[in-house]
Amino acid sequence: MWQMLKDRIRKLKPAQLIVTYYFLAISLSFGLLRLPWVHQPGQEVSLIDSLFTAVSAVSVTGLTVIQITDTYTVFGIVMVMLILQLGGIGIMSLGTFVWLLIGKRIGLRERQLIMLDHNQYNLSGVVKLIIEIIKILLLIEAIGALLLSLYFTQFYETWAEAVLHGVFASVSATTNGGFDITGQSMIPYANDYFVQIITILLIILGAIGFPVLIELKQFLSHKSGPFRFSLFTKLTTITFGILLVVGTILIYLIEYNQRFADVSWHQGLFYALFQSVSTRSGGLVTLEVSTFTEPTQLILSLLMFIGASPSSVGGGIRTTTLAIAVLFLINFSRGRHHIQVFGREIHLIDIFRSYVVIILAVLMSMISVITIMIIEDLDVIAVIFEVTSAFGTSGMSMGITPTLSTPSKMILMVLMFIGRVGLISFLFMIGGNNKKEKYHYPKERVIIG
Amino acid sequence: MWQMLKDRIRKLKPAQLIVTYYFLAISLSFGLLRLPWVHQPGQEVSLIDSLFTAVSAVSVTGLTVIQITDTYTVFGIVMVMLILQLGGIGIMSLGTFVWLLIGKRIGLRERQLIMLDHNQYNLSGVVKLIIEIIKILLLIEAIGALLLSLYFTQFYETWAEAVLHGVFASVSATTNGGFDITGQSMIPYANDYFVQIITILLIILGAIGFPVLIELKQFLSHKSGPFRFSLFTKLTTITFGILLVVGTILIYLIEYNQRFADVSWHQGLFYALFQSVSTRSGGLVTLEVSTFTEPTQLILSLLMFIGASPSSVGGGIRTTTLAIAVLFLINFSRGRHHIQVFGREIHLIDIFRSYVVIILAVLMSMISVITIMIIEDLDVIAVIFEVTSAFGTSGMSMGITPTLSTPSKMILMVLMFIGRVGLISFLFMIGGNNKKEKYHYPKERVIIG
Ligand SMILES: [K+]
Ligand SMILES: [K+]
Repeated sequence: MWQMLKDRIRKLKPAQLIVTYYFLAISLSFGLLRLPWVHQPGQEVSLIDSLFTAVSAVSVTGLTVIQITDTYTVFGIVMVMLILQLGGIGIMSLGTFVWLLIGKRIGLRERQLIMLDHNQYNLSGVVKLIIEIIKILLLIEAIGALLLSLYFTQFYETWAEAVLHGVFASVSATTNGGFDITGQSMIPYANDYFVQIITILLIILGAIGFPVLIELKQFLSHKSGPFRFSLFTKLTTITFGILLVVGTILIYLIEYNQRFADVSWHQGLFYALFQSVSTRSGGLVTLEVSTFTEPTQLILSLLMFIGASPSSVGGGIRTTTLAIAVLFLINFSRGRHHIQVFGREIHLIDIFRSYVVIILAVLMSMISVITIMIIEDLDVIAVIFEVTSAFGTSGMSMGITPTLSTPSKMILMVLMFIGRVGLISFLFMIGGNNKKEKYHYPKERVIIG
Repeated sequence: MWQMLKDRIRKLKPAQLIVTYYFLAISLSFGLLRLPWVHQPGQEVSLIDSLFTAVSAVSVTGLTVIQITDTYTVFGIVMVMLILQLGGIGIMSLGTFVWLLIGKRIGLRERQLIMLDHNQYNLSGVVKLIIEIIKILLLIEAIGALLLSLYFTQFYETWAEAVLHGVFASVSATTNGGFDITGQSMIPYANDYFVQIITILLIILGAIGFPVLIELKQFLSHKSGPFRFSLFTKLTTITFGILLVVGTILIYLIEYNQRFADVSWHQGLFYALFQSVSTRSGGLVTLEVSTFTEPTQLILSLLMFIGASPSSVGGGIRTTTLAIAVLFLINFSRGRHHIQVFGREIHLIDIFRSYVVIILAVLMSMISVITIMIIEDLDVIAVIFEVTSAFGTSGMSMGITPTLSTPSKMILMVLMFIGRVGLISFLFMIGGNNKKEKYHYPKERVIIG
């Protein structure tokens, strides 16, 4: 029986395995959220809403159809935190960790598995990598939790309360979970720059990508000689930074005489910065995004659609996909049919992948928006916002998610799932195997654009 | 002096030449529309509005800031028709035709020129091609004009009026100009299926692409042996057909209980069909598109964004670009890194081109929508609709174009211009020359999606 299951797993392709694992994690989370001690007395949550919460937490998105503080007990809140960890650390690394614990050596098959989920190529020692991931994430969370818990003692009567809020805020920020137990995201801290700065740092550390963190650690502990950051780290970090800065500036300028008309310049700047950071996939907000003007809401949607770095807790098309698209555009317009950047050439297959990811993401998002528009009677911008938020696993919301009908909720669940799994894995799962072509047809040109 | 000008032209790259020609055509058209006999007595048209009309007519888009029947004299209307011909036949073919007339042989340079504008590759005899284009277009227009003029005699008191309306309707439909002198597009013929069918046929013949028409003619006059349609013709015609049918079905289903609730099934079907055809780039409408529901308006926008066949009178990203994107998606998900279709393999450079066109078109449209949203206080769907209508040179309108401020009008003009010129030509113009790379950097993988 056990042998049969193991054989079955062995026969799955890496991409299928990842998708299977995520399915299992969602099922487990759903089960946890249906435990009798999760809900406060008198609170009824429908099965679809529990499933939605499970998918949202495993994919660390943060879109919710229920109000956590009003619905869940402390036990329920701890369960949510646990699921966020499960999603944030990544089922793959956790799975590998379990293998390690039971003393099994990591073979080529498991290496492939992790390489696909975290897409790690040039780094040696996959085993070391997984341990590093968990160590780094827990360390970041612990520091964040400590700082926030201590700081929160001034707001809460008991230490226990302060610690619960501190730990939850740190876990939610670092895993980019975007859930809150304040009942209104980070809005209570809209004027508290300390909490905001800590939260921003935690979100960035979670969304910047684990390979970047590991290389950074190597760089810091590096003794002598020149240290070369990988092309991936350079590309994703610069893209991440540009998105963050450009987002902040655009939001600030557009809302200067609108939403920020009555607040001080530094308050406006912090509003712009926090919301810009949150689109990478943090999902927490310091104001109701529905009070922004429509151009800002469209820009936030676009930023969420792009999402975070690969191999991070975030979703979307990912920073590197955007970077390669833009670099290819620039190189092609100069007559080059490849991409040169930082003294390296991007592999052709990665250009192909970025193309496929963008086409698929755009198609999927458009179909989702139009379908939800047909089902619900809602403002188009709110629908675009919620769809890109789900796909980017950001979780910022215009507030329509709790009002949605079951079919629309299911669309958002699928988007969160695919956003987290990643389009490339998803594509290989639905598309099946790699075939090696034995022959080629004659080539013929067609007319383009 | 003349020699200097000729030398200057000779030094331009093909793509730059095309753009230059379009600029000249717009200037000429602007001049024609500022002639004293163009406007009805007492009618004042601002310079920007004349320029807008000129750009709209040369790019055969059909978006208007003025009401032609109320503003222009019969002379003015004839001028508009003339400009539509200029745009529809294509400045390139016209330019070559002039060269032919003055007895100059067509050299390699001019061949390149035409090949880039009409992107014609496998067909021999570029000279023959241009003559064919003009002959076919004029023939189609003449047949359309004859049929419509005869039919219109029942509606108008004089033959002259019937002929004016018949000729204008035929020219506007065949060139996909989308202009009207009824004052309300094709709405007066909303129940006249004869006029609609003729118009639909004329729009399709204009938008299907000249290479397709020429191959069709060859096929029809073909005596014996098997005839092979080119890959381009197969790809673009099938995509065109699918878009037309899918568009019709989607519009019909979405509006079944909405806009079409009170009309007969055949009326609803004709509404859906006509508007679906018009998104390819016809631009004429049999109802106010603002009365559709929002999902339909979004679908129309998407269809306009895709646009018509390359080497046709239409714009947008073009049918083949979409076809290659979708085919690449399917092939890639099956583990292939090339496209096999109809027993042929698509050239790598064409996959690259489709990628570049889509990225650029999406970026351009999004920036345009957000900028216009910041400038104007307008509904986002109306803005998306007008922007995709301009880029797809379709010219369907939610009615906001006349209300726009000058900066927004300029954005639409740029979109119509780029939509007509084609993104590939535009890109090569701004990007400069083809450089041959002498060396390559080492390749390095990054993580995608
Ligand atoms: K999130
Ligand atoms: K048009």
